[in-house]
Formats: sequence, structure tokens, C-alpha cells
Amino acid sequence: MKNFIYDIGTKIYFGKDQIKNIGDIVQSYGKKALLIYGGGSIKTNGIYDAALTYLKQKNITVEELSGVEPNPRIETVRKGVTLCKENQIEVIVPIGGGSVIDCAKVIAAGAFYEGDAWDLVLDPKKITHALPIISVLTLSATGSEMDTFAVISDMKQKEKIGTGHPLLRPKASILDPTYTQSVSKYQTAAGTADIMSHIMETYFSNKKGFMQDRIAEALLKTCITYGKKAYENPDDYEARSNLMWASSWAINDFIKLGKEEAWTVHPMEHELSAYYDITHGVGLAILTPHYFEFILDNTTVDKFCEFAHNVWEIPYEEDKYQMAQKGIDALKEFFEKLHIPKTLKEVGISEEYFDEMAQKASSRLKGAYRELTKEEVKQIYQRAL
Amino acid sequence: MKNFIYDIGTKIYFGKDQIKNIGDIVQSYGKKALLIYGGGSIKTNGIYDAALTYLKQKNITVEELSGVEPNPRIETVRKGVTLCKENQIEVIVPIGGGSVIDCAKVIAAGAFYEGDAWDLVLDPKKITHALPIISVLTLSATGSEMDTFAVISDMKQKEKIGTGHPLLRPKASILDPTYTQSVSKYQTAAGTADIMSHIMETYFSNKKGFMQDRIAEALLKTCITYGKKAYENPDDYEARSNLMWASSWAINDFIKLGKEEAWTVHPMEHELSAYYDITHGVGLAILTPHYFEFILDNTTVDKFCEFAHNVWEIPYEEDKYQMAQKGIDALKEFFEKLHIPKTLKEVGISEEYFDEMAQKASSRLKGAYRELTKEEVKQIYQRAL
Repeated sequence: MKNFIYDIGTKIYFGKDQIKNIGDIVQSYGKKALLIYGGGSIKTNGIYDAALTYLKQKNITVEELSGVEPNPRIETVRKGVTLCKENQIEVIVPIGGGSVIDCAKVIAAGAFYEGDAWDLVLDPKKITHALPIISVLTLSATGSEMDTFAVISDMKQKEKIGTGHPLLRPKASILDPTYTQSVSKYQTAAGTADIMSHIMETYFSNKKGFMQDRIAEALLKTCITYGKKAYENPDDYEARSNLMWASSWAINDFIKLGKEEAWTVHPMEHELSAYYDITHGVGLAILTPHYFEFILDNTTVDKFCEFAHNVWEIPYEEDKYQMAQKGIDALKEFFEKLHIPKTLKEVGISEEYFDEMAQKASSRLKGAYRELTKEEVKQIYQRAL
Repeated sequence: MKNFIYDIGTKIYFGKDQIKNIGDIVQSYGKKALLIYGGGSIKTNGIYDAALTYLKQKNITVEELSGVEPNPRIETVRKGVTLCKENQIEVIVPIGGGSVIDCAKVIAAGAFYEGDAWDLVLDPKKITHALPIISVLTLSATGSEMDTFAVISDMKQKEKIGTGHPLLRPKASILDPTYTQSVSKYQTAAGTADIMSHIMETYFSNKKGFMQDRIAEALLKTCITYGKKAYENPDDYEARSNLMWASSWAINDFIKLGKEEAWTVHPMEHELSAYYDITHGVGLAILTPHYFEFILDNTTVDKFCEFAHNVWEIPYEEDKYQMAQKGIDALKEFFEKLHIPKTLKEVGISEEYFDEMAQKASSRLKGAYRELTKEEVKQIYQRAL
């Protein structure tokens, strides 16, 4: 196990009606809040009204930024930064899924930055201060509610880039599983794939970490059991609870500390979203099995057998490659059961930009489980086509 | 899943040579520290010297309390409280295993309490303030380095009682697995049993928690794999690392939040330690299989089958009772491989106090997985004799 520092300070209010605590939580950080949200569904499902009521009970002044995009844009971040500076905002309160929280994170840092917020996306070292973030989660997927990362897009430049800093980790997050019961089947499936991808990016690593990998398997089994249940029965509270809690732990550092490495599938997928604005989790689900088959060789086969056995209950057998393939097939079948598209074509992606996308993605794989070349990334895109 | 608030604020410095950070960590909480330790082994293995060097580099004034007992006594707590009050101590720095850290916790609270510190053991509600605790762990067992609990004994009254408060959770802990490489085989085995017991106390519960139980299984598998390795090869760093990290997560709240219930085996064992001053983990290992066999019935057999399959890889079979028993037998065999005594007689316990011990233990089982009567606890003691 490598040396590490564990420091996950996010306080989680988990369960039904935890929104009632939002006034108290926000109050302990300031009196002027910026509420950030997306397309406005929180206004029809009652979350917006509840949040405002409890914030006003504590005399919190509220400014608003709405319309955050599913792949949040730098233009929206800039608007938020301006609102913070003009209104002396003290606390940032994103209500939504990962996009809204990611957007809020860069706004929180941008509020203290003199230059353009895109600098903070390109170079996280420029983040030196950030406003406290109190998030209210409405979608189980990115884990942004408990982690330090944010992914922001500049669609004009066809850039989708991840940044991250310990200061961006939310101080507290409200996780009410009932908020996710209205999430569509498609988004539930995509969210589940996203959570699983976060876990697998860390699970497949050259660094040893027995406990970390057993925990990773525990989280994957949670996604497999409850992703399907939530897909089939959106109101299943137990399923929504388990998915929501798993989403936070997939990427909050716990399973990676002691065995950290750079990721592979996420950088490859970010190019798909940057060029075609597709749903992130769907892109991950399409690419992952092809990536796995591509890297299956003598150096990885034992890890794939471990995956097959411990996650999918596939019995050990003499032919390790056959067993490894069964694990990958089980993953494919799981995504199929969630009716996630299986090819890039299905989500409107052609070969047109494969060259530049592969170029960009391969430049971001330094230190990964497999450092793929541009040509290798292109081959994976082609297999997924 | 039940509603819960997750709030684990302990920062962990994990790995070789992390002691070098102790000056910086302590300095951020104060300039006057009380160093607390046990029998003095930290003076022969270099930890004491290293800690003092780094503390002095930051001009921290250090008072000392040594001689904390394996089952820490209230008399020692009182001494510590006096030292804090007389020297205006600002930070408590226990270096040792769970006993030393537990002792430090009640001292930390006692420093702000006007009455006798035993009051804080009997009634945790009387804890209203506590000095910050920065612990340095030298034994993987109790999880005290990251949790809110402390167990203190009054041997004159034959009382060993657990107390707990969020204020008692260490602010930071240094976990250097090399410090545990000198731990004896006997204590390594007992520590492993203690960690496993913490996990099983939560795993066997009437409350649902799929993700929590899969994580619990992951931690149990870590103990099973690496408890044996550390026992056989005390210098195995990977084994010591995994055990150490598992010890913190077995009891820091993570696996219990959402499915909390009162514990069963610990209260029964505390009476053994209180009357006979035996090693806590050994008492737990002796009692647990008998407790499991005692409560195995129609209402628990499915949970025991889950335990057998997911933890011990025992295949599902038609006869559920037979399968459940195989899981319990696997646990027994594991403890045997670690050469842990199997009977109370072997550790010098006779029937003499069974009546009063069972009386006390049964009074502390309200809200447990099984609320055992005095007669039932007595039967379990007798089976274990």
C-alpha cells in the first residue's frame, strides 16, 4: 500500500426530508448564498420551494443561477463568478446532479480568482481559495457531492476537461434518495454506468490494495443489484438509497488512496462528450467493454479473473482468458439489461473526429493502468463504433 | 436504509514515516501537549524519540502520562485530567493501541469537566467539550484512532464500560504499519479478532443495508487474508497495512450508518475483561462462535448463509442450517489457525461470577440484534467454558 493522507471532510445528511437542515448548515458558513441549478425540474418537484423556505427561515439572502447544462459550460461558470463577485456571496448551494455541482465548484474557486475561470480548469494549481459549497443531490452518478473534482466544457473549443482541488470538496451534502425517484430510466442507467466506471478506473490498477479492491467490489455489487432494481422500479427507495450512497463512495478518494493511478476510460469518453455532447455515463458504458477487451493480455488477465469471480460470481476455471472474457461479457450484459446504447453510432458519433479525439485523449493517460497511444485509443473508438 | 448523518472528520496520515508530520499537526491545535502512552515500548522502538523530536522542532511543550494499562483504568484517566488542568494542556497526543487512545479520550473530555471523570464513562451526555486528540497508532485492533468510543475500567467495582461522544473522535491519526510489525503473534491474533468482531456486530443486524453489508464483507475478507499473513510473517508490510486500515473502518461509523443497532458480543465480553482482566480480542473470539450457534434459528439462518457464502466462499446448498453452520465453523477454524484460546477456562475464567456477569451484560443489550436475557447470556458463557 502506498503512503497517503485521508481527508474527506464532507458531512452527509442522508435520507428522507434532510432538506430541513439546509438553513442551519448554510447559516454556519454565511448569510449570502448563491443557489445554482439546471433546467428547472427542481421547481416542479418541490425541492426548490423547500430549500428556499428553510433558507429564508434562517434569514439567508439568496441569489440564483439557473440553466446549468448537462455538460456544464465555461460560459455558465463565468456568469456564476460574476454573480458571486457582485453580490459578495459567502456560500454556494448547488441543487442538482453532478453537472450543477461541478459548475458550482469552479464558480466557488473563480470567486477568488482575478483572471478567467477557464484558467482554473486548465491548471488546478491556480485554485488557492474557494467559497464553501453545500450541495443538494438529485442524481446518483458523478459523486461530485463528496469529491474534489469538476469537469467543465468549452464547446466552442471542443474541450471537456477535468480539474480538481481539495478546496472544491463540498463542506456538506444533502442526499435524499426520494429526489432521485423521478430520474428517467435512461439517466438512471447512465448514472449507474458512471458510478461503476469510477470504481473500475481505480480497481484496474498496477498498484496493490487488497482492502481497496474488496471495497470496490462491494460498491460494484451494490450498483449491479440496485442499478437494475432502480431501473425496473424507479420508486424503490432501498435501490435509490444504495445507488446514491454508492455514488459518493465510488470517487470520494476512499478506494483509490494507497493505490492511486491516472484514469483511462474517462479521458477517452470526455472527448466524445466534448465533440458530441452525449450523456457521459452512456459514453463510458459503450467504451468500457471494448477498452477491457483491448487491454486483456498476460499482464492483466489475473485481474480480470478476479473481477469475474469477485464481482460477477463466475467460477474459477483453467482457461484464464475464457474466464476473464466471461467477466467482461457479464458487464456488457448488465449494461444491455439497462438498455444503454451499445455503439457510438447509436448516439450519433461517426469516425469524423477520431483522429483529433484520440490525440487529445492519449495525451491525458500518463501514469494510467495502460498508457494508450493515439493509435490505440483510435482502435478502441473504432471497435466501439 | 435508515436516515443518518455521516460526519467522520479524522484526518489520517497513513504509511511509513508519517510521524514526521506530528509537529505540524499538533501545532495547528495548540502549543502544550500531553503525551500519553503505555508500558514504555515506544521508548525502545524509536517512536517516542521521533515524536518528541518533531514536536520540539515546532516548539511544542510536552507533558507526559505513562503506564496506561491494557484495560485502561479510571485512576489513570484521573491522573491525566489533573495533568491537563494543572498544565493548561491544549492537545492530547496518545501514542499506542486502543487502550491508550481510549484513556486519552476520556482525559480530553475530563479536562473540561468539574466532577469525577467516571461520570463521563457512565453518562456520555455529560461530555460537552473535549481537547483535540492527535493519535499515533501502534496496534491494529480497536479502531479508537478514528472512532468516537472509549472503554474504561474500574477494576475495584469490576466495571468495564463503554462511553462515546462525537467530540472524542481524534482530529488526526498517524497510522504507520511498520509500528505494528513488532506486535506479538498473540496480540496480532487478538487484534484481528477484535476488528472482525466490530464488523460482525454491525453485519448481524435486523436493519437492511446492502451496501453496508458488502463493505463489511470486504473488511472481513481483508482481516481473514491479512490477519493470517501478519500472524505468520510479522514483517509483512502489505499485511500490516491492510489490517491497520481495516481496523479504522470496522468501527468508524461507515458500515453502521443506515442500519444501526446495539451490539451483543462486546457487552458480554466486557464482563469477562472486567472480572478477569483478559485480552479483549481473545474474549471476543471465544464468545462469538458460541453466540452465533446460540442465535442460529429460522429468523437468522439466511443471514448466516449470506455470511458463509460472501465471506467464506461456502457454496449455497439446500440445507440452510448446514450451510450456516459451515460459515460459523469457518470462523472457528480461522481463530484456531491464529492459535487463539478456544475456551474461557484456558484464560483462567470459571463459573464463579457467571450470574452477576450475565446480569450486567444482559442489561446492556437493549435494541440489539438479539436481546438476550440474563439466563441466555449465562448459557452462552457456559457453552464457552
